[in-house]
Amino acid sequence: MDYSDVLAAAGRIDGHVLRTPVLEISPGVFFKLELLQHSGSFKVRGAFNRMLSAGELPPSGVIAASGGNHGLAVAYAARALGVRAEIFVPEVTSPVKVAGLSALGAHITQTGAIYSDAAEAAAKRAAETGALAVHAYDQAEVVAGQGTTGLEIVEQTGGVDTVLVAVGGGGFAAGITLGTSGGAPGLSAASGGESGRSPQTASEGLLGAAPEPGAVSGPRIVAVEPERIPTLYEALRAGKPVPVEVGGVAADALGATKIGSVPFEILSSPRVESVLVSEEAIVEARRTLWARHRVAAEPAGATAYAALLSGAYTPAPGERVAVVLCGSNTDPSTLTT
Amino acid sequence: MDYSDVLAAAGRIDGHVLRTPVLEISPGVFFKLELLQHSGSFKVRGAFNRMLSAGELPPSGVIAASGGNHGLAVAYAARALGVRAEIFVPEVTSPVKVAGLSALGAHITQTGAIYSDAAEAAAKRAAETGALAVHAYDQAEVVAGQGTTGLEIVEQTGGVDTVLVAVGGGGFAAGITLGTSGGAPGLSAASGGESGRSPQTASEGLLGAAPEPGAVSGPRIVAVEPERIPTLYEALRAGKPVPVEVGGVAADALGATKIGSVPFEILSSPRVESVLVSEEAIVEARRTLWARHRVAAEPAGATAYAALLSGAYTPAPGERVAVVLCGSNTDPSTLTT
Repeated sequence: MDYSDVLAAAGRIDGHVLRTPVLEISPGVFFKLELLQHSGSFKVRGAFNRMLSAGELPPSGVIAASGGNHGLAVAYAARALGVRAEIFVPEVTSPVKVAGLSALGAHITQTGAIYSDAAEAAAKRAAETGALAVHAYDQAEVVAGQGTTGLEIVEQTGGVDTVLVAVGGGGFAAGITLGTSGGAPGLSAASGGESGRSPQTASEGLLGAAPEPGAVSGPRIVAVEPERIPTLYEALRAGKPVPVEVGGVAADALGATKIGSVPFEILSSPRVESVLVSEEAIVEARRTLWARHRVAAEPAGATAYAALLSGAYTPAPGERVAVVLCGSNTDPSTLTT
Repeated sequence: MDYSDVLAAAGRIDGHVLRTPVLEISPGVFFKLELLQHSGSFKVRGAFNRMLSAGELPPSGVIAASGGNHGLAVAYAARALGVRAEIFVPEVTSPVKVAGLSALGAHITQTGAIYSDAAEAAAKRAAETGALAVHAYDQAEVVAGQGTTGLEIVEQTGGVDTVLVAVGGGGFAAGITLGTSGGAPGLSAASGGESGRSPQTASEGLLGAAPEPGAVSGPRIVAVEPERIPTLYEALRAGKPVPVEVGGVAADALGATKIGSVPFEILSSPRVESVLVSEEAIVEARRTLWARHRVAAEPAGATAYAALLSGAYTPAPGERVAVVLCGSNTDPSTLTT
């Protein structure tokens, strides 16, 4: 997979997803407001790209396992394309989320104690019906679709040195890594002498190694995970995807037990830096997004910002930074608590 | 007052206010997300322009009467400029709002039963101390500052045929009327043949009269008011500002009892169309903004959208429309009720 896959995805999903806006909250610090996306998260980008890449969809439609953002996105995209969507969710899924899926016209099966049970049941059902399975993160078309966010970030900011993005299964961060690798043509024009360093030198400086020419192209990707769900962090240490314990405030959206294989290969790039944030930092970032910026985020949607606000990632003077705010499927009454 | 006053204001307040983003929710329909502005509303634009137009500010600083968005904006701008702010609010003002003003470092005087009592006390105090009075809508510098939103709408959308904006005292709508009158150079380039009509012909068609050449320049301004606060509507009928009864869900932010004299002169333009919306339409627009678009608005902030959603204003096929969402100072727990 490479940049061209993301470009192709952008052409495919154009008109089906929103070009979400960017807000420059202080000089050189940009919020990418992907939480204003259809269905409340970036997930529709991958869902549409997967479905539109498949040619004619089977009469049994599409199938996915997720009571969260991915399920909502697949249901949304299926309705938009006029195909059947079957969504498998574990029995613990809240009635509110089931109602949300129902409102989008999805056929819902509640089965199994936890997510992996529901996923297994969905896979079995897909084999029976021939429905197109849409994975939450571990499919090339899904990763390429999510990556279109990266194309927009480059265009809308005129180029940045660094992108902060939350990681669960890794599809979004991997897509953005590819989607920002197109040479960032706007950077020198837009930032001029403002930014003290180019993306290349920034990465070299941080990682202490001179990469192969061409191996590192595009901004640094700061992949932010909750301390309690370190899927990428542990995979990078182990050199391969490994299972982790999952918990904490962002587990409903970032709670993959293992980084995806497709994302992991991309995220093993020297451009990617893994950073962990505490539970408290996520809660504080979410509270601050509402109190100071009037942006309503779910905990996962505030996780990238938590790295900046808490100092887990500290930009150099003049460094241009994009923070991707990726999800808003939350009860707004909890924004001030 | 004219377009050049708004251009001058833009230069003056640059760097102090956010260039709030625009979101194209469907082809040719744009949300101007001014509710992401500092202090949660457009009011800081006028506050900064008034203060920065005054030359050196007196040691007694600035003074304003408002327990709502204007008070917050003046307190915010004063803190940013390092000057003293004195805010007069009526005794009915909620402790939450007083705390918000306090957090911005304002000196607060709670006096009088209703707003006009507090305003009178503030005027008296200003005469004693020599503090610079910042009016909520009826000052040229305030109107010019608010108008910078209009400049951004033209630039960010590439030009529109129509802008929908809520009206209370009229300062924001008047400013936007001026700020969009600069010839909308982007329109023909961006909309090309898409839009069936130019701003001029649109206004001519609707108003049934051919204006003086040059008298109507820029998009139609749809000035939206709650039925229960028809300050502009009644003033246009009477040919002059007249007092109205004030009530309803948006009264905390749009509850001026009379349109301002400075705004009224500008809003008497043939470009401006007055539209009223019901209480139910405002509530439904606010609910829809959250449920469908994940935008958290206060009732006043959703009032312009209410005109579009309820059909009180119906665009022609292909008409390019900007809806200004202007305030988000609200309890988020009420977004889903």
